[in-house]
Formats: sequence, structure tokens, C-alpha cells
Amino acid sequence: MSVRAALVTVGDELLLGQTIDSNAAWLGRQLADLGIPVVRGHTVADSRNEIQEAVRASTAVADVVLVSGGLGPTPDDLTREAVAGLLDRPLELDETLLVALEARFEARGLDRLPANNRSQAQVPQGARVLRNPHGTAPGLAMEAGDTLVVLLPGVPRELKGIFEGELGELLTERFGDRASPVRMTVIHTTGIPESLLAERVADVLPPDLGAMALAFLPGLRGVDLRLTLQEKNESAAEAEFDRVAQGLQPVVGPYRFESEEGDITASVLEALAEHGATLATAESCTGGLIGKRITDRAGSSSAYLGGVVAYANDVKTRQLGVEPDLIEAHGAVSEVVARRMAEGVARTFGADAAISVTGVAGPGGGSPDKPVGTVWHAASYQGRTVAELHTFQGNRDAVRERAAQAALFLLLRLLDGRV
Amino acid sequence: MSVRAALVTVGDELLLGQTIDSNAAWLGRQLADLGIPVVRGHTVADSRNEIQEAVRASTAVADVVLVSGGLGPTPDDLTREAVAGLLDRPLELDETLLVALEARFEARGLDRLPANNRSQAQVPQGARVLRNPHGTAPGLAMEAGDTLVVLLPGVPRELKGIFEGELGELLTERFGDRASPVRMTVIHTTGIPESLLAERVADVLPPDLGAMALAFLPGLRGVDLRLTLQEKNESAAEAEFDRVAQGLQPVVGPYRFESEEGDITASVLEALAEHGATLATAESCTGGLIGKRITDRAGSSSAYLGGVVAYANDVKTRQLGVEPDLIEAHGAVSEVVARRMAEGVARTFGADAAISVTGVAGPGGGSPDKPVGTVWHAASYQGRTVAELHTFQGNRDAVRERAAQAALFLLLRLLDGRV
Repeated sequence: MSVRAALVTVGDELLLGQTIDSNAAWLGRQLADLGIPVVRGHTVADSRNEIQEAVRASTAVADVVLVSGGLGPTPDDLTREAVAGLLDRPLELDETLLVALEARFEARGLDRLPANNRSQAQVPQGARVLRNPHGTAPGLAMEAGDTLVVLLPGVPRELKGIFEGELGELLTERFGDRASPVRMTVIHTTGIPESLLAERVADVLPPDLGAMALAFLPGLRGVDLRLTLQEKNESAAEAEFDRVAQGLQPVVGPYRFESEEGDITASVLEALAEHGATLATAESCTGGLIGKRITDRAGSSSAYLGGVVAYANDVKTRQLGVEPDLIEAHGAVSEVVARRMAEGVARTFGADAAISVTGVAGPGGGSPDKPVGTVWHAASYQGRTVAELHTFQGNRDAVRERAAQAALFLLLRLLDGRV
Repeated sequence: MSVRAALVTVGDELLLGQTIDSNAAWLGRQLADLGIPVVRGHTVADSRNEIQEAVRASTAVADVVLVSGGLGPTPDDLTREAVAGLLDRPLELDETLLVALEARFEARGLDRLPANNRSQAQVPQGARVLRNPHGTAPGLAMEAGDTLVVLLPGVPRELKGIFEGELGELLTERFGDRASPVRMTVIHTTGIPESLLAERVADVLPPDLGAMALAFLPGLRGVDLRLTLQEKNESAAEAEFDRVAQGLQPVVGPYRFESEEGDITASVLEALAEHGATLATAESCTGGLIGKRITDRAGSSSAYLGGVVAYANDVKTRQLGVEPDLIEAHGAVSEVVARRMAEGVARTFGADAAISVTGVAGPGGGSPDKPVGTVWHAASYQGRTVAELHTFQGNRDAVRERAAQAALFLLLRLLDGRV
């Protein structure tokens, strides 16, 4: 018999629509991956009764119930107490948790634990504590008849940290032999619209996909092609994925980048490391987004020296050496300015490689000639510079995300010889 | 007695996490504005039984139940039939709807209505049809005892179109005299942990809050304090909010920033505009995040000139003029380096104001002296520079988000005379 999950999400702010519940979708995907599909979700108020009723209804239909939210230190956080009450497990102070909490507050320079936070060291009798790598409220797992009930904090980062750590292990241990995991592989592309990619993929897709499902997941940074297959045997699934991916390669190859987490900055940093090259950035309309994305990655300092956010034209001239008459003649959003910016920052920073972006992010600043979404970007490596023009669709955020991604992809292709 | 709503959202794709349920939040906000707060939400599979069970449970607790999704033309769309069955209202063909559907398909160049689509002209006996301005599935409203049950399509644009049209009118007509809108105000704070803020707030909270509810909403960038009050009279609510906010001011004042959307960059840009001042940034561990956040906002170019991402120490020296022996003596993460970075970028860019950040974002790079999370930041305005030291908790992302926010807040306080 298959294993089933139910979700209970706690919080007035969700019911009043002040927060969109992104946890439910994330948990739904993770649980599907483990072969434990969610069959029902509840959203309830910060109310003892409501929490209890939803958990009771969920245990009747599911093998595991995940309750998220309401584990914070304030009086409107009622989940711990409500579930402990429902399951007849009195709350007990966990000394190990208390010590860890005190240490955490001490590290923040506070001499004592606020009284409110002591509640976060309370644990329903017999519950297993699941480590929270990012916060003060641990996960709590306990039995309710044949059902496993797990309490998780509502802060997405904390919930994910617990799930990816001790909760994932616990679920695999307990349900792994009954669940058939949905296995998955993802082919990352960027620079081609979803509809065009889908059309071309349809032309080359092997006809014998069997139980394998193919999905197109479009985002601002590109389109992921996700292959899924519910299959106990991991190597059999891998072989199937390889076969299909090879069939798709002629179509996806020019737009593909390899990255375990799907982040092109990882691929760029790897390529830079392979070339033993350093990098600098010159950003106008992206305003620091590319630098931010590169330095999101730990260890980026081994290649990334830094950059200039050249938002004002004057900065392009003074910091990057772009001649004012070039800006005058061609405009700040032009091929020659993009090239000069990349070459200028490489020279000034003494970097082997550089990327630059200059464009019209909108909503203002467009012209018939250069409408909102017009972006020039350039990549330079050891004196060779290539530039590209795009006209991106979407609002300011979308244009900036797409521009940053396109500039990173151009550098990647320059480094691996595709341009 | 107050009026209460419940939501039932139908769709496997929501449970499997392939789609994030944005309808629930949108409906929650709309209903709260009408004074009909949502008290419970269900998410259920494309299953007749599950839909019926959720609607039955919802009618027991709510005056109006909105069911969204599962009204499409394909065999997995079961909502219409499930609810008609539950409420003993046989489905009947609505001739007016059928004619409208046929006309719609004709306009699309199809000579006949696909058989599947005929199901969309079926209406539970006695149900009121609510016009869908954007699609083929109308809303359907019917009585279930004292409760109004309304079926809506799951496509967000269609659901919104119906709500903003005939459904909104229907709800106001029916519940307007009983409903009191939920009014809300938010106090934004940053730089104080949730638990400590809660403790201090408890000390000064006026005892006579009446029906007003207070919630703490923590995030990486700070803690929002949300006051809600269900109250017919808008100015009475405003007066109550003002009274309570004034009571809290001594405690929240030092950590408060005013911003309609809750983004401190808006406040900083406003303050810069008031002073007629330009801004430049010098970022080490945040790697461009501050520049990115400022330039997220359209119109930021009126104050923001740009900045330097000084990731490598050499860049701090060459681009910002930080003396190498200062870095040698005090380390790159030190007060004097933070100050020199801010002053350096202000000078080089000719900016009136500047902020700088230098810190250990982790996971590597920490030392007993300067553990991961140690961040110095500085703000400079017209030659006066202030600096702050923080030790932030959390992973690399968290440290960077918190550092960027703290630096922006320091500049804000410098501009408005709080430091």
C-alpha cells in the first residue's frame, strides 16, 4: 500500500492573504520525490482548536502529517501546545535544547535568554527532536497511533533545513521500503523560449518514453526540462534518463548548461577554475545583481575579484574608462559601450575575464529605438571580447534577471569555446 | 455575529507542489477587505470524495465557502459534479450558457463545440451563474442550508474576474450589513530579534487592546509588527492604530523604518531625495546585494551613482584607496577598513553619501576572533562617518541579507539624525 502525507499549515497571515504559502508546494515536491504524495492540505488560524481539528482529520487519512508554523517564541505561536494537548503528551523542558538556545543568544551578545524563547525548549513527551540548522525552533516528530506527526517552523529556510537534514532521513528510514521514489533528472537551458524549445524537443523525442514523464519548467533564468520516472532501481532509472537526454542533445546542446543545483554561476565558477582565470564585473542596469549572484556561492573569492556598478554614465567613464564621446555618439546602451565596460573592468581590476551589462530595465527610459528590455552585454577573456544584444520581455525584475543570466551564459560559452 | 469564509482549493498539481497556490492568498485578502475573514483552507486532490468531504467540513464552520479549481472541460475536472452530488442538486444544461460557449468557440474559428466543453454548460439545479469575463467556466453560487457555496475556476485571471465582478456584488449584498472589514497596519522594524522585541513590546502594550490583534512577522530583514482590527468605521480603526502605535513607539522607535511596501530601500531613497543627496556603495561580503536592492527600485538612478564590489583586498586598495597596511594591521573585516571603504567610494564617485560592508559571510573564513557572521559596516554623509559591528546568525545567505539590511538602516538613521 502506498504511503500518504497530509499537510497542516498554521497562520492567520496565510488565511488573510498577507503571505503566500510557498512551504506547501515545496513540501509537496519533496514528499513526491520520496514517494510519499500529499493527499490533503489544511490551512488553519493561530487557534488551538483549529490546529487540533486539522491534525486530527489529517491523521485519519495519512501516514505522515507535517504541521508547519506556530513554533515561534511569541504568544500567538500555539502549535506545540495544541498538538501536545491533542496527543496527550505533556510538554517537558528539554535541557539539551535549552543549553543550545542559551548559547545561541549568548553568541548574539545577549546576556540571557528572553523568557519567551524558553518555550522553544519545550518538547512534547517522547517526541524526537529534529535539528534546525537555521533557527531556534527544532522540528518535533511523534507518533499518533500509526501516523507520524511532525511539527516544523513556518520560516521557509528553517523548514527546508530540517527537511533536508534529519526529517528526510527519518522519512526514508521509516517509509523507504514501501515508497517507490519518483526519480528525476533536469536538463538546464537558457536563452530559448519555452514554446520554441518544446516544439524542437517534440521533433527529436524518442518515441518509447514508457512511464517517463517530461515537463518544461520555465523561469526568468531559463527553461528546465525535467524528466521523471517512478522506479525503485536507481541505476535503471539513470540509464533511461541518459538514453533520452542523448536523444535531446542536438536540440538542447546550444542552450544547455550543466549545474547540479541549476545555477549558472556554479558552472561559470567551475569554468573559471579550469582556466585558472579571475573575473571582474561591470554592471549598469543589473546594478550589482551579477556580483550578488556570483558571491551567493561560497568560495567565489577564488576567482571573483569584484566589480563596478556603473549606474551613472559618469561612473562608466571615470571608473571603467569608457570615452564620453562614445556614450554621446552611440548611447549608454550600445554594443561599443558594453565592450568598453567589460574591457575596462578587466584592465582596471587586472582580471583575466570580465562581463558587462548595459540596458533599459524600465519601466521608464525606453525609446522607439531602444525600448524597455533592450540590453547589450559583453564577455571578455584574455583580450577577446564578444557582445550580444537582447530585447527581453517582462517587467523591471524580469529584464534584470534575464540580462544577468544572459551575460553569465555568454561568458560560459566564451570560456568553453562555444562562441 | 461576524461572517466567516472557508476556501477549498482543488487540484493534484497543488498537492504535488507543481503549482504554488496564489489564489488562496488573493481570495484571503479580498475577503478580509470585505469583512469576511477566511477561517480555514483546504487543499484537496481531483477526487469526488475529497472534494465533497472538504466542502461538507467547510459548510459547518463558514457562512460562505469558495471552491476553486476543477471546473475545466477535462475528465479530471470533478468539482461541479461532486458539489452538485453533495448538495442534491442534479446538473441541468443551461441553454444560455451553451449558446454563449458555442459562440465563443465559433469566434475562435472552431466549427463546433468540443464535446468536453459541453460539461461547462451544466449547472447544479437552482444555482446562480456568475459571469466569467475571461474564460469558459462561469462561477456558480448555491445555497447549502445557511451557507453560500460558490464554485470558481482555478485559473487566477478567471477567478479574479468573477470575484471582482458578480461575486463581489453578491457577497456585499448578502453579508454587507453584518460584515466588518479587517483593517490592518504594519510597523516595520529591523536590527532587533523577534523574541527581544516581543518582550519589550509586552512591557509597554496598552492593556485595553480590545479586539485588536498583534502579530510578530519575522524575516531575514527584520520583524514586522502587524496590528489588525475588525471594524466597520475606518477612521475609528485608524485612531485605534495610532493610539497603540504611539504606545509602542518608545520601544520600537530605535528600530523602526517607515515604508509602505516594507522595503527599507524605499525609505533610504526617500531620505536621500529629501536631502538632495547622491549615494555610492562599497561592498565586500555582500558582493553587490546592496546595489541590487537599491536598483530593484525604478527611479533609483536619481540618487544612486553606483558602487564598487571590492571582493578582493587589492580592489579595496586600488579602487577605494584603503591603505594596504591598515588591512594588514586590522584585517579586512575591521572598523577602520569599513570606514575607509565608505569614505573612499564617496570620494571616488563624488557622492554625498556612501555605505560600505565588510564581513565574514561564511561558511569558511571565520576565526576565533572574527567568527562567521562578523560584519562591520559604515555609513558616511557629508564627511561624517559612523560604523557598526554585528555578529549575525545563520548561513551565508542570512548573513548577507542581514548585513545589507543593517547597512541600509545605518545610513537611514544617519540621514534622519538618529545616529
